[in-house]
Amino acid sequence: MNEKIGGKETYMQREIHEECGVFGVYDPAGAADVAADAYYALFALQHRGQESCGIAVNRDGVIRVHKDLGLVRDVFTKENLAALGHGQIAVGHTRYSTTGAVSRENAQPLVVSHVNGQMAVAHNGNLTNAAELRRQLELSGAIFHTTNDTEVISYLITRERLHADSIEQAVERAMPKLLGAYSLVIMSPRKLIAARDAVGFRPLCMGRMPGGKVVFASETCALDSIGAEFVRDVEAGEIVVADDQGVRSIRTHCRARAHTCLFEFIYFARPDSVIEGQSVHEARLQAGRILAEEYPTEADVVIGVPDSGLDAALGYAQASGIPYQIGFVKNRYIARTFIQPEQGQRENAVRIKLNALASVVHGKRVVMVDDSIVRGTTSARIVTLLREAGAREVHMRVSAPPFISPCYYGTDIDSKEKLIACQMSEQEICRVIGADSLGYLSVAGARQIAAGAHCDFCDGCFTGKYPAATPREMDKDKFEQPANITE
Amino acid sequence: MNEKIGGKETYMQREIHEECGVFGVYDPAGAADVAADAYYALFALQHRGQESCGIAVNRDGVIRVHKDLGLVRDVFTKENLAALGHGQIAVGHTRYSTTGAVSRENAQPLVVSHVNGQMAVAHNGNLTNAAELRRQLELSGAIFHTTNDTEVISYLITRERLHADSIEQAVERAMPKLLGAYSLVIMSPRKLIAARDAVGFRPLCMGRMPGGKVVFASETCALDSIGAEFVRDVEAGEIVVADDQGVRSIRTHCRARAHTCLFEFIYFARPDSVIEGQSVHEARLQAGRILAEEYPTEADVVIGVPDSGLDAALGYAQASGIPYQIGFVKNRYIARTFIQPEQGQRENAVRIKLNALASVVHGKRVVMVDDSIVRGTTSARIVTLLREAGAREVHMRVSAPPFISPCYYGTDIDSKEKLIACQMSEQEICRVIGADSLGYLSVAGARQIAAGAHCDFCDGCFTGKYPAATPREMDKDKFEQPANITE
Amino acid sequence: MNEKIGGKETYMQREIHEECGVFGVYDPAGAADVAADAYYALFALQHRGQESCGIAVNRDGVIRVHKDLGLVRDVFTKENLAALGHGQIAVGHTRYSTTGAVSRENAQPLVVSHVNGQMAVAHNGNLTNAAELRRQLELSGAIFHTTNDTEVISYLITRERLHADSIEQAVERAMPKLLGAYSLVIMSPRKLIAARDAVGFRPLCMGRMPGGKVVFASETCALDSIGAEFVRDVEAGEIVVADDQGVRSIRTHCRARAHTCLFEFIYFARPDSVIEGQSVHEARLQAGRILAEEYPTEADVVIGVPDSGLDAALGYAQASGIPYQIGFVKNRYIARTFIQPEQGQRENAVRIKLNALASVVHGKRVVMVDDSIVRGTTSARIVTLLREAGAREVHMRVSAPPFISPCYYGTDIDSKEKLIACQMSEQEICRVIGADSLGYLSVAGARQIAAGAHCDFCDGCFTGKYPAATPREMDKDKFEQPANITE
Amino acid sequence: MNEKIGGKETYMQREIHEECGVFGVYDPAGAADVAADAYYALFALQHRGQESCGIAVNRDGVIRVHKDLGLVRDVFTKENLAALGHGQIAVGHTRYSTTGAVSRENAQPLVVSHVNGQMAVAHNGNLTNAAELRRQLELSGAIFHTTNDTEVISYLITRERLHADSIEQAVERAMPKLLGAYSLVIMSPRKLIAARDAVGFRPLCMGRMPGGKVVFASETCALDSIGAEFVRDVEAGEIVVADDQGVRSIRTHCRARAHTCLFEFIYFARPDSVIEGQSVHEARLQAGRILAEEYPTEADVVIGVPDSGLDAALGYAQASGIPYQIGFVKNRYIARTFIQPEQGQRENAVRIKLNALASVVHGKRVVMVDDSIVRGTTSARIVTLLREAGAREVHMRVSAPPFISPCYYGTDIDSKEKLIACQMSEQEICRVIGADSLGYLSVAGARQIAAGAHCDFCDGCFTGKYPAATPREMDKDKFEQPANITE
Repeated sequence: MNEKIGGKETYMQREIHEECGVFGVYDPAGAADVAADAYYALFALQHRGQESCGIAVNRDGVIRVHKDLGLVRDVFTKENLAALGHGQIAVGHTRYSTTGAVSRENAQPLVVSHVNGQMAVAHNGNLTNAAELRRQLELSGAIFHTTNDTEVISYLITRERLHADSIEQAVERAMPKLLGAYSLVIMSPRKLIAARDAVGFRPLCMGRMPGGKVVFASETCALDSIGAEFVRDVEAGEIVVADDQGVRSIRTHCRARAHTCLFEFIYFARPDSVIEGQSVHEARLQAGRILAEEYPTEADVVIGVPDSGLDAALGYAQASGIPYQIGFVKNRYIARTFIQPEQGQRENAVRIKLNALASVVHGKRVVMVDDSIVRGTTSARIVTLLREAGAREVHMRVSAPPFISPCYYGTDIDSKEKLIACQMSEQEICRVIGADSLGYLSVAGARQIAAGAHCDFCDGCFTGKYPAATPREMDKDKFEQPANITE
Repeated sequence: MNEKIGGKETYMQREIHEECGVFGVYDPAGAADVAADAYYALFALQHRGQESCGIAVNRDGVIRVHKDLGLVRDVFTKENLAALGHGQIAVGHTRYSTTGAVSRENAQPLVVSHVNGQMAVAHNGNLTNAAELRRQLELSGAIFHTTNDTEVISYLITRERLHADSIEQAVERAMPKLLGAYSLVIMSPRKLIAARDAVGFRPLCMGRMPGGKVVFASETCALDSIGAEFVRDVEAGEIVVADDQGVRSIRTHCRARAHTCLFEFIYFARPDSVIEGQSVHEARLQAGRILAEEYPTEADVVIGVPDSGLDAALGYAQASGIPYQIGFVKNRYIARTFIQPEQGQRENAVRIKLNALASVVHGKRVVMVDDSIVRGTTSARIVTLLREAGAREVHMRVSAPPFISPCYYGTDIDSKEKLIACQMSEQEICRVIGADSLGYLSVAGARQIAAGAHCDFCDGCFTGKYPAATPREMDKDKFEQPANITE
Repeated sequence: MNEKIGGKETYMQREIHEECGVFGVYDPAGAADVAADAYYALFALQHRGQESCGIAVNRDGVIRVHKDLGLVRDVFTKENLAALGHGQIAVGHTRYSTTGAVSRENAQPLVVSHVNGQMAVAHNGNLTNAAELRRQLELSGAIFHTTNDTEVISYLITRERLHADSIEQAVERAMPKLLGAYSLVIMSPRKLIAARDAVGFRPLCMGRMPGGKVVFASETCALDSIGAEFVRDVEAGEIVVADDQGVRSIRTHCRARAHTCLFEFIYFARPDSVIEGQSVHEARLQAGRILAEEYPTEADVVIGVPDSGLDAALGYAQASGIPYQIGFVKNRYIARTFIQPEQGQRENAVRIKLNALASVVHGKRVVMVDDSIVRGTTSARIVTLLREAGAREVHMRVSAPPFISPCYYGTDIDSKEKLIACQMSEQEICRVIGADSLGYLSVAGARQIAAGAHCDFCDGCFTGKYPAATPREMDKDKFEQPANITE
Repeated sequence: MNEKIGGKETYMQREIHEECGVFGVYDPAGAADVAADAYYALFALQHRGQESCGIAVNRDGVIRVHKDLGLVRDVFTKENLAALGHGQIAVGHTRYSTTGAVSRENAQPLVVSHVNGQMAVAHNGNLTNAAELRRQLELSGAIFHTTNDTEVISYLITRERLHADSIEQAVERAMPKLLGAYSLVIMSPRKLIAARDAVGFRPLCMGRMPGGKVVFASETCALDSIGAEFVRDVEAGEIVVADDQGVRSIRTHCRARAHTCLFEFIYFARPDSVIEGQSVHEARLQAGRILAEEYPTEADVVIGVPDSGLDAALGYAQASGIPYQIGFVKNRYIARTFIQPEQGQRENAVRIKLNALASVVHGKRVVMVDDSIVRGTTSARIVTLLREAGAREVHMRVSAPPFISPCYYGTDIDSKEKLIACQMSEQEICRVIGADSLGYLSVAGARQIAAGAHCDFCDGCFTGKYPAATPREMDKDKFEQPANITE
């Protein structure tokens, strides 16, 4: 629904935001319509970032880019896609800002020019030492045009490139200096390179299209959308290079199994994606099933809050034996241009977006499954909707553990003050949202939902324990205000 | 999905289109933000027409209107809503053209000026004698600015108004001349009037808002969206007048129970609406249950094609005992600005919009439920999606009977040539779409799905038998080309 | 400059506004790109109306139209011109509203459908009995969609058409009922018709293009812009018909020489137009020459206020022997999107648009020529500009007599309260604008400026004497508020 | 008129293009609406660049910028000006690209962040060693986001800033490394700095607003537009700093009188500007007068091609005694959105933009004055216009010498192949354009037109002799294609 942890109000359905989606395609056969591949792949990755997007196309070493604020469907037109033209390589990006302001300048891919030609970089994740790196670069005379991590990464690679034999060696040498989470797709004049931090916070996979094109994407759903076959996940710490010599891998920084963000399985990723071998949809069904075991209840129907609560609701129904029902109709026409109701009509806003099916819930004891509670206000409104539609009891079940700690690795789960679970007990939350009972998935339960994944997990937002060192302070606008101004 | 009976290709999810949604609000307390009420109500009625929309506001007898081609979210802005201003009465309309070209001129509400002031008319339905009426009017010196029925209706009412004591009497006298389907909301300088044809093809209901505002809408979901309470359906043949004397009814033309369009229950209406006392969602669940009885099969999972096939799929699962599963993920970001893939990539178009969940269907015998088959191409693509995702068997079930006859009453189910069921046997269709088996709901079954409705049904598109006389010929562009040009 | 008589503030250079420009083209050779002809002709007529514009194209009796608020350059795109398509006939219109609100509905050409097919009407002028005619029509059951005269004219023609043998006969019969000023271009399924009221207030001319196309336009500059040769003016009261029989004339209503608006020669028309045989540029030169005789002065330079004061300034210089100079630079980039300065910066607004050339006026006695003074504020600012640039003396000369009476015939010279010359003596005006002396062209002088014209003049705005009966009351919004509302 | 040296066809009136206009304002009194000052000043500088524009505002050291492709009137709205907010300092820029592609990325001011905070740079001119400087920077690890000189300048200043005591010292140290033409306005967190290359190719002046704001602008017309008083020109080689200590000057690099571009006086600058003490309008009058002496002829009228030929035509008339007349009407409504006529109608394009006044030229011997001939096609069309309007003889006079050599210093007078005067003799040109005689201003004559200027001139484009070393090769897209790609 439409609530946000941070200050920005948005029409989007998601309360918590992933930073970005990345995509790259390399055509060994020569110049092709790689911009179209990127366009359709970005549609599949739109859920990972709705603030800005961009595509850069490389034709014979010359890179053209188009990017802007807005959704893929609005930013790209037949005309500007045609102007990008055909090429051998393309990279694409969808962005939600965790670092750096919402501005056209911060849209990605970032395209820069350096001594060995042009480079385009698309980044998903968050560096924990970006401010320090930037300060060091500035002290050596660097100038910055944006406030995002990607420019820092580009600089580090460029600096290494001066003394490296190849762009991939430059990436390899830069990686130890980059702390935090990053899944990168990098385009040089002749190569497409994918790289993933050694912890493996964010997903990144490789595929191949029927004609032989090599593709990289944040999620497998992007491969499906363009008819590419899944090859494998990029490993934590791995660099994969695609060029006219074929595809090869640099594993210098590979150390252990990835610790992939557990909340990708619960919430961020699209249910039709498969991450580290685990179907996301199955993980959510399983979350619902475990939740049913951990928090059983007497009830007549199980319903999910669309769209992200439906999978877990079905799992809860399967495990509990309580019939699954469709409890809400969601209005599909709401978009950024929707005019929010005035204060007095604010209560109606949720009704316009979501309507309860009285015929399903009237007179019933209802289990309502959602995937998270952030500030609690949206949940409270949904409980009210159900009661007004005649529900006799409303038992809320959440298919994730409570958030108790910020995420430093590429999402906007931020300060503790804004997380209701840091402020109140579950009992208090239950009272605030007006439910008859409330149950969160346990951390132990959450760790079991993706049993098929061949990775470990980062569950720092649920436990406060992270698979890497955390920074002392984090601020989204860390580069906005210059630390010291002296003239 | 994205297939159409007629020639127009569209991004919309609906294969078959309803003509329109209508809305009206009267505030007995004085000038209020009735434009906002209309705006939010039209969001709830957007599924009934996505080509154009409009709102007219009446302040002290002076009517302002804003209307254009496009969705409610795109046509209306803070600025133009503010420019409409406050008023005592408003009417709104969402349109999909069954008669008249897609043009700005044809957008509704139609606002005209006549001897007794201004009038705004919003119309859902289709007159079967519009061409004759128009010809007669032209022969008496009338001129027309549009090619839609609504202007004909406006003329008839205006002509009657010359000799009638009131606008409602003019409506009453005009109704016997109007053949076919119409659910009207009419705004005069001081009154809001709702009227429904004597057969009652299209739904129309009345509600009341907490502060006392009287509202009329095509569906109850519009009442819910603005916090209005459902009062009752407008009866077939009834005229309801709201003015400073209160609300009163004229029943001169009421003859019998409405014969409401059966396909409203199966497909057109929003599932959270209640029509003639019958929950639409329940009717669809029931369609699925009856379908399971009529066309049982051995299978492992039942899945629905989103969004409109989900209700019936759940009903099928309930009745058959085969587990209900979520089989597809639908991309919510596709909109009118989406660039269709080139011919060579056409197969991918369906993948971008819809992805099958391999973890659900792989190795399984699948029952796939959808609400209609029009040309068959979309169904064929969806079957392919499932097979590629590993489905062992695909049994298609359709929660409506086959279309065998055109609709003359406000939908675009038109000529027989374009309906696959008029061209092929069910066995042939099954082969064409590539399914292992195919089953349509029987006409007898369809008549049972809305058992709770206190109305009869028009099921002419399934049977060829209509509750009213049908015209000799029907053409969407019936007014486009002047019948005879003489000078 | 940027001042207005009426309430509407506008970026446009013109203080006083002509109502409209009209254009029509008939191609005897078959379907051609007549929309392009209209597009380029409307560019040449843009000075006659900048509020809205439109083009209607007739292909084989079917009329397509595109019109909207805005300038020709903004309303028409390659796409919508292409959508209008080729045809045998086209009519075009540029509009500034003297009657009827500024709204998309009121844009012209008006396209209507009647018993004999479609008709498009483009109108320049103003009916003095429009309200009465409209009332009569409404009493016979007519409904109106707009608030402009053109719809009344369309109705009258249509009504006559019912019993007439041809559209031109219908026009002929309708004309005696239409009082006031009208220069019409009318397109029927197979004919293009031009008609001018019997007084001949507004200009209308006929031309022929090299390939044989017949064209009508408000001014000859439109003929030049499309390479058409001037044939002759349409006479006062004349109807000219172009169809597959050729071109023919109906002179039933021709009575005497036209009394063409004198202010067309002074101000409205483009200087490169020739009206009734008189070059407009020459008339303005002559106005300047006569002004120099009527109001001589000792001075060092003569300058004109661009653009419309330049011609008369040159004439003044010629007759007086005082050197002509370029005294101002005008910013050509100001347009509707220009953001007006805040109150405190208001003085700057005139500087942004107009800058005085200090090198020309510094230390000089300056004669500044403009073509009118409306409210006086703009003139006062320009005098200030000159003084600040160092002018020693500023002698203002106006190449028209003072406005003392409203215009009922198609311009916005309206109520006496808003005309400074009705409120103050010339001496007072001179003091208010801060000039050292002020001289207006005399009425007698004005009557001599167009000595080459084979017409008489309407100079009612300067004399209060009109060549036709005037209405009792005139209101731009005469149709806005229904006279009486009864239900 | 509408002809261009380079390949780009444009609607603009100018055949030859200046690179840019720059503006800066510093308010010692605190945060004010400096964005509005910049907005109105850029309107006055629009003629110096119509491709893109931008404004950057500094509030307490934090810089916000808005820039885009398009005219000032289209790029800026009330909303985005308000979003820029109030501040102590602002810089603005209008751009026509001589170096770097036409792209949003290349729009200025360039805003970068470095170790001492943010910096915004607006640049008019062209570096002749930009490619070398860029290469050196890249070799030290620099990355570039744009392809324009301004980024190179920004880097050099930033690098110097690391070891300099102040931003102005960094500018001072960077200047000797910058070869070619530059008039810069630079904004640091607390200072506004203006700097001009030691040759002084491009103009740059300083002014003061009534409330004490210090402003810099390319031309004095920008000062006039915002009510600022002219203080003085920035000297060649001078750096002027405005901050809370007041205004001070650094003259380390000042060597001699400026050699200002002579074509600024003839063509580029606005006639109401005063450059180096010389009125531009007077210089053009003088050019016309000298031309009359150099190329006298027997004729009846002298006319100028609007707008830029009018001043010289008046001068020609004054010196020759032949009467000055207004010979053309120019359509003021043409803009970027104008749809160019199809090939067959191409001849009409010039008629739509320009119409000859037959009453002025018919039967006359005409002297037609324009300020340049580039390819000759426009001149040929104008001569044809005059002949068709009845001119008996057409004598073309050009108020500048022929172009025989490229400009390396900030205009698009480029390769010799495209300059007609490098390809043909004057006699041949006269025949090609169809004139009866042709006369160009002599170089010696051109040097006398700005006798009042306290500067020398660069007239390299007329003589091939430049006041500074010229580069070996010049290419507008010099940074587009990386020189060498190695990986």
